[in-house]
Amino acid sequence: MKDQHRSGCPINLALEILGDKWSLIILRDMMFGNHRHFRDLLNNSMEKIASNILADRLRRLTAEGIISRTDDPSHKQKAIYSLTEKGIDLVPVFAMIGAWGSKWLPVSEELSIRAHLLHEGGPALWDEFMDDLRVAHLGQAPARAKSGPTVRERLQAAYEEVAARKAG
Amino acid sequence: MKDQHRSGCPINLALEILGDKWSLIILRDMMFGNHRHFRDLLNNSMEKIASNILADRLRRLTAEGIISRTDDPSHKQKAIYSLTEKGIDLVPVFAMIGAWGSKWLPVSEELSIRAHLLHEGGPALWDEFMDDLRVAHLGQAPARAKSGPTVRERLQAAYEEVAARKAG
Repeated sequence: MKDQHRSGCPINLALEILGDKWSLIILRDMMFGNHRHFRDLLNNSMEKIASNILADRLRRLTAEGIISRTDDPSHKQKAIYSLTEKGIDLVPVFAMIGAWGSKWLPVSEELSIRAHLLHEGGPALWDEFMDDLRVAHLGQAPARAKSGPTVRERLQAAYEEVAARKAG
Repeated sequence: MKDQHRSGCPINLALEILGDKWSLIILRDMMFGNHRHFRDLLNNSMEKIASNILADRLRRLTAEGIISRTDDPSHKQKAIYSLTEKGIDLVPVFAMIGAWGSKWLPVSEELSIRAHLLHEGGPALWDEFMDDLRVAHLGQAPARAKSGPTVRERLQAAYEEVAARKAG
């Protein structure tokens, strides 16, 4: 959307779009939490995103083609946000940032189990997760015959197991 | 350095430190360009970082233990900045962000060849690069017997080759 870039370096161009404190948080909640509506993203935000920031970032991410916005067929008033292929392709970036954060920062056990499993699963699991996301966000047919829970559901179950153990 | 975190999620904690437009640019220039002094980082900045922002980010990255600051033994007036192990461990994060940026954003050929080669080399090349960085930044003895150019030098040579071809 911008005509002026600071440089043509891929790291720089990625930071021009994603280099802030919130964009990747929103994408994380769409990707791992399947939050697809504005209200979901706002009310279920662990980090308590402000509604004006959420609106601004959704607009920017849509303009950059990382997410798309369409009318929700089941709620005429509501827009539904979906990851695009460009957004889904951030899965390995999340895996690596999550692995680094889990290793070096004061993470909580229940909030890092998903990052841990995603990193441990390596490229095979990332590909499976990306296929699942294409089904959920792009409406594509599954790339492979599959039974049982999706990658997101398995990560979510692992999170809930740790959270329940810690609570009990 | 902060007592209050927005959440204990590894993605969030990583963004609290690195989620801005400049921190990863500075680390990139230290890692891939071996810029180690304030003046190098300022004067050779492709993205033209402002000196007050550079000073602020160097202070924060030092406080977070991602880089360290020591007196340069060869220039008493000058401080030298080094990546710590925590900073060196960002190599796979750079590889993945660089790969995503190269695939989806309007990168220039010469500025994306390093990202391309780093991603293509995979974990074996990242490990070798991290070993080289431990030698250069932490003063460690090489982890393996090695002759020939370092990973950084090879990436730099590939960049210069593309730049020369495009100029000529």
